[in-house]
Amino acid sequence: MAYWEKINSIKDLKALSLKELNSYAEEVRAHIIETVEKNGGHLASNLGTVELTLALDYVFDVPNDKIVWDVGHQSYTHKIVTGRRDSFDSLRQNGGISGFPRPSENEADCFIGGHSSTSLSAALGLARARNLSGQNYNVISVIGDGAMTGGMAFEAINDIGVSKEKLIIILNDNKMSISKNVGAFSNYLARLRLSRPYAKFKYNLKRGVSALPFFGDKLVKVFERTRDNLKSLLLSDKLFENLGIKYYGPFDGHNIQNTVELLRQAKNENRPVLIHLVTTKGRGYKEAQTHPEKFHGITPKQNENPTEIFSFSEVFSDKICELAERDKRVVAVTAAMESGTGLEKYFKKFPNRAFDVAIAEQHAVTMSAGMAKGGLKPYFAVYSSFLQRGFDQIIHDVCIEKLPVTFIIDRAGVVGADGVTHQGIFDLSYLNLMPNMTVFAPKDGDELQAALEFSLGFDAPLAIRYPKSYVRCHKTHTPIQSGRWEVLRSANSDKYILAVGNRMIDIAMSIDNVNVINARFVKPLDYEMLDKINTSESRILTLEDNVLSGGFGEAVRCHITVKSDHAFISCLGHDGFIEDMNIESSIRGSGINAENIKKLLKI
Amino acid sequence: MAYWEKINSIKDLKALSLKELNSYAEEVRAHIIETVEKNGGHLASNLGTVELTLALDYVFDVPNDKIVWDVGHQSYTHKIVTGRRDSFDSLRQNGGISGFPRPSENEADCFIGGHSSTSLSAALGLARARNLSGQNYNVISVIGDGAMTGGMAFEAINDIGVSKEKLIIILNDNKMSISKNVGAFSNYLARLRLSRPYAKFKYNLKRGVSALPFFGDKLVKVFERTRDNLKSLLLSDKLFENLGIKYYGPFDGHNIQNTVELLRQAKNENRPVLIHLVTTKGRGYKEAQTHPEKFHGITPKQNENPTEIFSFSEVFSDKICELAERDKRVVAVTAAMESGTGLEKYFKKFPNRAFDVAIAEQHAVTMSAGMAKGGLKPYFAVYSSFLQRGFDQIIHDVCIEKLPVTFIIDRAGVVGADGVTHQGIFDLSYLNLMPNMTVFAPKDGDELQAALEFSLGFDAPLAIRYPKSYVRCHKTHTPIQSGRWEVLRSANSDKYILAVGNRMIDIAMSIDNVNVINARFVKPLDYEMLDKINTSESRILTLEDNVLSGGFGEAVRCHITVKSDHAFISCLGHDGFIEDMNIESSIRGSGINAENIKKLLKI
Repeated sequence: MAYWEKINSIKDLKALSLKELNSYAEEVRAHIIETVEKNGGHLASNLGTVELTLALDYVFDVPNDKIVWDVGHQSYTHKIVTGRRDSFDSLRQNGGISGFPRPSENEADCFIGGHSSTSLSAALGLARARNLSGQNYNVISVIGDGAMTGGMAFEAINDIGVSKEKLIIILNDNKMSISKNVGAFSNYLARLRLSRPYAKFKYNLKRGVSALPFFGDKLVKVFERTRDNLKSLLLSDKLFENLGIKYYGPFDGHNIQNTVELLRQAKNENRPVLIHLVTTKGRGYKEAQTHPEKFHGITPKQNENPTEIFSFSEVFSDKICELAERDKRVVAVTAAMESGTGLEKYFKKFPNRAFDVAIAEQHAVTMSAGMAKGGLKPYFAVYSSFLQRGFDQIIHDVCIEKLPVTFIIDRAGVVGADGVTHQGIFDLSYLNLMPNMTVFAPKDGDELQAALEFSLGFDAPLAIRYPKSYVRCHKTHTPIQSGRWEVLRSANSDKYILAVGNRMIDIAMSIDNVNVINARFVKPLDYEMLDKINTSESRILTLEDNVLSGGFGEAVRCHITVKSDHAFISCLGHDGFIEDMNIESSIRGSGINAENIKKLLKI
Repeated sequence: MAYWEKINSIKDLKALSLKELNSYAEEVRAHIIETVEKNGGHLASNLGTVELTLALDYVFDVPNDKIVWDVGHQSYTHKIVTGRRDSFDSLRQNGGISGFPRPSENEADCFIGGHSSTSLSAALGLARARNLSGQNYNVISVIGDGAMTGGMAFEAINDIGVSKEKLIIILNDNKMSISKNVGAFSNYLARLRLSRPYAKFKYNLKRGVSALPFFGDKLVKVFERTRDNLKSLLLSDKLFENLGIKYYGPFDGHNIQNTVELLRQAKNENRPVLIHLVTTKGRGYKEAQTHPEKFHGITPKQNENPTEIFSFSEVFSDKICELAERDKRVVAVTAAMESGTGLEKYFKKFPNRAFDVAIAEQHAVTMSAGMAKGGLKPYFAVYSSFLQRGFDQIIHDVCIEKLPVTFIIDRAGVVGADGVTHQGIFDLSYLNLMPNMTVFAPKDGDELQAALEFSLGFDAPLAIRYPKSYVRCHKTHTPIQSGRWEVLRSANSDKYILAVGNRMIDIAMSIDNVNVINARFVKPLDYEMLDKINTSESRILTLEDNVLSGGFGEAVRCHITVKSDHAFISCLGHDGFIEDMNIESSIRGSGINAENIKKLLKI
């Protein structure tokens, strides 16, 4: 580990020769493997970006230059060379460094990046800000081929293409289309890769020149020569060129020397350019290279939990297969999360009724709505924080016409090491505000099975939300009825805990001598039970793994305080979709009128 | 009006000859102009689609075949020929027919379509449902060039391209890039149009053949001849072809005969095809053709309101120019809503600091975040219901790192004639749940000016939301302080109305002898004032033009019932973003633990 100890900043990195960078790359790779095996994290993607990151940080000057990492879980190398070498073993640990770029963590991370397909938009914003404020830094977006399928990446390209802003896009193509076929764009990149051998510079670095960063006469000559070589290599490509973006590629993204020269060239371009680099996910780690999907996100190896941990995803995995066996209408949809959501088995068993639409949650929601309209029974399995991308589509395409799409929301509640961008703590609130939506949270695997059974006969929008795992099986299981809760423990007490989902229920059950209610329907609430327990003596506590604002507790509190004698506060507003097409009568129709106001205020 | 009276169904339409369709088209056009002038609605876009709609409904058999209209405000002709001729003069009237496709209104509208770029996803879902359920209807998506810039359209194309599903996409290219330059895709279409003359079939219809729908020998011959002609016309195009979609075009979308033949041909294709039709927005209505943006959505001509109506958009229009004059950091962003949001003047005065990113709200949000990160002061002006598309981006790219993007949210609250898909009644709820967000609702134009002044010095995410117009100017204006409300009327009473925004305030002020508070900050609430008015005698009423769930009233109610003696109910959950990277400590850190539970339940 000759270089690891020496390099702790961009300045240190720039002092290396191009040759030395190769040796350093191997050391970085070894450290990433060691740390991720210990702490968990994203392995395969980071092993694929070691060389391209070193080339980027070698050529550009962060934090003055801005590198925006898309789905930032590919940015470990960048963290290591920008002052976070020594804290790298705290990766994804509480109080440690984030697994994603965080400007608040280090100014070398110029923009946050936990969700997919955001970097092009952020980069264009930065480029425009640079011009308008009379500065001249470089802006680089690093985006994977997977992230390019997210619609907002295309929205950005559409804008970048006409903006003519100086901006470099690194398309990190790690050939996911070899193992998976996730869309026409993947196929297109595969064709590009196959159509020509990877271009390489054929220049010989002289010893003197390799001693960068001193820009001597010799280097200038190399540059000139390189430029000529480059010209013939700048094979135009219609897709990007048609959209106004200069295309360079494809090149081998593991060849540091080539990439450095390419970037130096691109730096001189005064327009948007896209450099297509081909890399190997999991490079240098045999298992990860062979099965990159298994090593996308890994959990710590030595994680031995004292209690047995069961996975909701696995329960879903088995049950959806059973439902599909019985009911030919069942189809499953995923947005590039086949493995994470537990759909692998289903995809193998029912390939014709399994749809991976790539990282495209908006499309996934509305495509599912189309399927429901066509008479199928679609299940869209998705992580809670990623479903935020489909917010408008759930309201507009699913809920207004009440189409029976079932949302299987995994990774709900807090998620631990993935951190702030991945917390699934908003779904109860954003689903609560949607008219015609029903929301269910199972207390264990058995209840998830029952909920899935229930879903088959439920003819309206339904969301079933749960975290990654559960630890206890609760013996009681009363049959599921729409909008009815379950009394888990009946105590001789006027104190009630209304708990949502397995985590909260486990906590509630740890408190003795209180009534514990499994509030499995978050929407609609079990108004009957609420009214029953809401006496003048009772004390009620709600528990939810979600933000308070707009969540379960607020809904319960509002119902209770409306119904109780404590009705010293009233609220007027709309309730449900408004079909009325006149402003005044819409407002009047929701009870917002003088008569009603006077009644509520007892005037 | 020889044909108008005769045609009230697809069957009637199919009885016409191709020649007669042309005459009928002119009658339909005249009726659309007459009705929209009277009722308001979308004029220019519907005048552009008369012929292509007649061709579609002539060739296909709705409701068995499925036509999905994107941004359905181009579907008036379809409504007229599918049984809604007689109700057409109730267009956009209360109790009348919707200005957008509504399956619940008529089964000929197979999918809802108020928001942009959804039709391709819905169509693919329907096509997949067709195959899996062993049916064989046709699925057609009609999408404008503007809607093609929405990211979810690209997400769908990426999926359609590999799906190989039989599916017809009508790209209705109404050349918006002539008057506007909204993106690389527009430019690309313009180049396609210029690169070759519009293709036309050169065949002569014999009299006998034109008497459709009888499929005689002669027609078969015409088909065969046409197929040969077609072959030479199927000019391949790289962009769509690269993504796996067969491209036909461009063709003149006002030539019914050609379009009919094209569609008949496309019907025989067993794969996804895209037909590029060029049409003229506002065709047949001189003013609308010259200034299509002015005739995009029009309000009834004879609308004479007794009270004077002022527009918030106009106030914003002037004030943003003033701010931009004074502060060079100010930039304005719109997603194809320059005119509707009042940015036209600004765009003329400050072209270098004005960004129309096309229909691309996701990109608009994150691009604005990038600009803010780069030191600018971006104002993204957008309609409330369209900002739903940027929900995830506001949380992820703006709020986590607290970037100072200002959202100017127009068309908030109920919107009247545009109906259910355009109601701006969710924004208070979806913004309320976002940590680090501040939400302001002005009571009149003067207060909007003051809010914009305030925004300039406000260094965090801020949303200013208002409806289209206001009618009263309230004289009192106390200076704006973050999170502080304004007492509009102090009465000798213990009754309080807390009203959000101009509409609710006007209603509140119409009630005598109650205290009226202008709750201009919806988030954060004015806790100090709330605590002051929250006595054991007081009665409080909240008014908001928003859904109750997660809105202003719930937030007030929760605060008051927590603080008051009525604290018989408590809620535990998260409050804000969770930076903690361990699940157990995240939950504990939010106070969800046995100790706290016991305290709250007084155990």
